[in-house]
Amino acid sequence: MTDFVLPIAGEETERCDAARNRRLLLDAAKELVATIGADAVTMDGLAARAGVGKGTVFRRFGSRSGLMQALLDHTEKELQQAFLFGPPPLGPGADPIDRLVAFGRARLDLVEVQGEVMRAAENSPELRYSAPAHMVNYTHVLTLLRTAGVEGDLELLAYGLLTPLEATLVLHQFRDLGMTMGRLADGWEDLVRRATR
Amino acid sequence: MTDFVLPIAGEETERCDAARNRRLLLDAAKELVATIGADAVTMDGLAARAGVGKGTVFRRFGSRSGLMQALLDHTEKELQQAFLFGPPPLGPGADPIDRLVAFGRARLDLVEVQGEVMRAAENSPELRYSAPAHMVNYTHVLTLLRTAGVEGDLELLAYGLLTPLEATLVLHQFRDLGMTMGRLADGWEDLVRRATR
Repeated sequence: MTDFVLPIAGEETERCDAARNRRLLLDAAKELVATIGADAVTMDGLAARAGVGKGTVFRRFGSRSGLMQALLDHTEKELQQAFLFGPPPLGPGADPIDRLVAFGRARLDLVEVQGEVMRAAENSPELRYSAPAHMVNYTHVLTLLRTAGVEGDLELLAYGLLTPLEATLVLHQFRDLGMTMGRLADGWEDLVRRATR
Repeated sequence: MTDFVLPIAGEETERCDAARNRRLLLDAAKELVATIGADAVTMDGLAARAGVGKGTVFRRFGSRSGLMQALLDHTEKELQQAFLFGPPPLGPGADPIDRLVAFGRARLDLVEVQGEVMRAAENSPELRYSAPAHMVNYTHVLTLLRTAGVEGDLELLAYGLLTPLEATLVLHQFRDLGMTMGRLADGWEDLVRRATR
């Protein structure tokens, strides 16, 4: 057993500053990715954009791939906040199937901006389905299917609806095949409505 | 313009021998994978099993990953033969949706035996959806959906039905989550029937 240690005032401020700086850097990184694409983002570029030294960026994220992972965690958490606690139709209050459709559309928006980072995370077979973000998404979809009263093997149906949203496939359809993101979103909604009616 | 060159008898025999030896090696490799699992198959083990020298195996396939790729091509082609020209319900003659269900079940059988090799091929984002085997499967599913008179964006529906059959997901469900292959096959059939009714 150890005693709880109350943070002293200065220490707490320092932690708050660190957290705020980290969030500022991640917001700057998100804007950069949206503007010039994930492949073009460098540690130098982020430092310049955020108005900090390159050393700060490296100290915070370790490496470019550490930055990309932190950025993905950050945006996944924002989406989770939105579907768990935000306004309908994504958040609570709307019809569960409408919430499911809104969830798929929001994920496709995320792929459009951060697809490369998401794809890199998917192409590690060990991590792909055990990543915390995947588990949260899976649980959310399963809960919505149950709440909607859909019958059948809902665990498998949840996987069947989540896999077409994976970045590797969506980027192929969007970039290589020239399908618009609007078409992909409508197609996913159609699959959901057919599978749950 | 070049003249056609008739093969001389000896040459043709040699080519037939090479093709037959290659097929014998691939059949032996297939049995080995089914018996001890793809991860445990070595070039030495295959040579011993097929009763040839190790040099022959290396000359034929170049490397262990070359062997695995050749094995996957071999079994994908066997499955293609079966669904294009074989007996119903997989081949022509049956109801198109029944053929689609049989196709999914046959692919899941393939994943059960050669999943690791298929998963390795999937985890190359450049090759995943441009591989010839993927294109043949996609065209087959799309043709069956059209023949069945299903309405909607059938290209996207074909992707939506193919992605839950990918080895990376199926191996996770089968090995990590302990779902039986029978359950996965029934769940996929259920998704197909819902999406096409």
